[in-house]
Amino acid sequence: MILLFTDFGLSGPYTGQMKAVLASQAPAVPVIDLFADAPAFQPRLSAYLLGAYRGAVPEGGVLLGVVDPGVGTDRLPLCVRADGRWYVGPDNGLFELVVRRAACAEAWTIDWRPAAMSASFHGRDLFAPVAARLALGETPPGTPVPVERIRRPDWPDDLDRIVYVDVYGNALTGLRAAVLGNGVELEAGGRRIARARTFGDVPVGEAIWYENSNGLAEIAVNRGRADGVLGLKVGDEVGVFGTRK
Amino acid sequence: MILLFTDFGLSGPYTGQMKAVLASQAPAVPVIDLFADAPAFQPRLSAYLLGAYRGAVPEGGVLLGVVDPGVGTDRLPLCVRADGRWYVGPDNGLFELVVRRAACAEAWTIDWRPAAMSASFHGRDLFAPVAARLALGETPPGTPVPVERIRRPDWPDDLDRIVYVDVYGNALTGLRAAVLGNGVELEAGGRRIARARTFGDVPVGEAIWYENSNGLAEIAVNRGRADGVLGLKVGDEVGVFGTRK
Amino acid sequence: MILLFTDFGLSGPYTGQMKAVLASQAPAVPVIDLFADAPAFQPRLSAYLLGAYRGAVPEGGVLLGVVDPGVGTDRLPLCVRADGRWYVGPDNGLFELVVRRAACAEAWTIDWRPAAMSASFHGRDLFAPVAARLALGETPPGTPVPVERIRRPDWPDDLDRIVYVDVYGNALTGLRAAVLGNGVELEAGGRRIARARTFGDVPVGEAIWYENSNGLAEIAVNRGRADGVLGLKVGDEVGVFGTRK
Repeated sequence: MILLFTDFGLSGPYTGQMKAVLASQAPAVPVIDLFADAPAFQPRLSAYLLGAYRGAVPEGGVLLGVVDPGVGTDRLPLCVRADGRWYVGPDNGLFELVVRRAACAEAWTIDWRPAAMSASFHGRDLFAPVAARLALGETPPGTPVPVERIRRPDWPDDLDRIVYVDVYGNALTGLRAAVLGNGVELEAGGRRIARARTFGDVPVGEAIWYENSNGLAEIAVNRGRADGVLGLKVGDEVGVFGTRK
Repeated sequence: MILLFTDFGLSGPYTGQMKAVLASQAPAVPVIDLFADAPAFQPRLSAYLLGAYRGAVPEGGVLLGVVDPGVGTDRLPLCVRADGRWYVGPDNGLFELVVRRAACAEAWTIDWRPAAMSASFHGRDLFAPVAARLALGETPPGTPVPVERIRRPDWPDDLDRIVYVDVYGNALTGLRAAVLGNGVELEAGGRRIARARTFGDVPVGEAIWYENSNGLAEIAVNRGRADGVLGLKVGDEVGVFGTRK
Repeated sequence: MILLFTDFGLSGPYTGQMKAVLASQAPAVPVIDLFADAPAFQPRLSAYLLGAYRGAVPEGGVLLGVVDPGVGTDRLPLCVRADGRWYVGPDNGLFELVVRRAACAEAWTIDWRPAAMSASFHGRDLFAPVAARLALGETPPGTPVPVERIRRPDWPDDLDRIVYVDVYGNALTGLRAAVLGNGVELEAGGRRIARARTFGDVPVGEAIWYENSNGLAEIAVNRGRADGVLGLKVGDEVGVFGTRK
């Protein structure tokens, strides 16, 4: 199975062209859109989102991750193996939280190059063919590198920012709920927001934060859109008041 | 084949996570997005939409239907078998019109529970694994219940409301065209609208209603957007003037 | 492999219903969304877009192309074979640039009709079943016609118009970059725009045009949206100043 995590957006031919390559080179492998709207051009925000949703990748599966503002520069292309899953994409920190939260991780630079490679679409020309090979059980077409070489040690374990706004207007933070005490309040859009278990715990129109189905602290408004009511957008800082675990 | 009918929206990781579960548990089964934007949190409106589009499900196919405002409450999870097709989802009326229009239907509650089940995402944790099993030919992991137990006898056969606005701005009603006489006029957005066979029958900018390719009475404007011109949105009432069959 | 090129939009049940037919009739064949938002109701603009993206179709693959404002009229349904790829859709010029740029091309009218065919959804009822057959290696269910019969000899080789605006706001023209000299300037939104290799060549907020990853001249703004900054939309004329090759 190959999962796609990109900032290509929902429309346009970018995802389709990658899928055409995958279907040509690994025809029987299911390909699934996990996120097509990860924080655009922002590998750091995207890394915390991916860190929380890495559980969607089954053992032996491949995540093809393309949030790649440096395409066309000399940033390296990478394969990472973490806890029995493959991750393929640029060396820009996108896989930092995947690696950090894994029991074991290895990394390779991708040395293989296609016969023709566009300047701006390595997702199609370079990363997709490599993801197809890994999904078929081949080894990475490159050179092992110490996993430390791809790490971002200065990044925090949890990110005090909005990393995604979903279709309902809920704002996902880069904070894992499990590291926040029950009494912790978050501050976003100028308001203090208390933790609740469900929407039913507060009046209509009031904001809460809760642990979402992937473990992130998520800010929502009962029967409303948190992005609109609180004026939140991807990248906004979130204040944390109370004891972190 | 598994078809998805949800209100998860086009973006976000919800559909992708369900598909990852389906691909893990039923790898060779095609999975198709039928609707990702069914009327949000509104099982009743959604039921009339699904009733019209149930024809997309082939014999032996499975429809995974998740419009589930009651997730986390004690509403039951269901499997329904109607005319040789499977339907999996919450017991909230979503399958009422499917059952009502079927020659034969049976129902089961789902007793199986996964090792870990989130409070808010039964689509991924409970319904998707059950849909995968049914697609592979297994029997429902639950208890047969009389189909009357899941019925909504007070709901009408056709619904005088807008149940969907499509990408062109056309407004689909919950009324089957076949039950409306040719002389029937619909009232929506404060205007009386006559039936026509095609757009060409009226001047540019004028509204008509016609039988769409799935049998519903659909309101459209020649070379315009009915939602904008008439001010229509999902849930709006539609008046019926003339003889119903 | 079957690729979809339509103006059905991202939402709604149109693509899903076509996919359900394809999955029923050609279950093991991957189906990929290339464009769901080709220029709506505009086969001519769509033809230049498809001409540039035909490279996504692998040898033996099928492109199902439905931009079909004439559905329900007497326009013919077609199968085209060009350089070892199949194209299925209406005879309205949609495949003109595919044929023109092919080393060899053949055409068939589709004579087969389904038992039931809606007036408005030939994509599902007629074209999808034919695409499924071709993907399985069958011959076209129709009559060979001289390829000249489906040509549009009066159309230019390149189109001086915007044919697509992508998710980043970049405006794709119908002009192949390879036919434009390096000194060529494009005029769009009232401004002259010079060619550049990358965004980094110009200040933030300034417009450039460059050869995109599929060979088209594409207009973009460094760290901005060209559609917004320059006021561009699909169908707009583009001026060409300088020597065409």
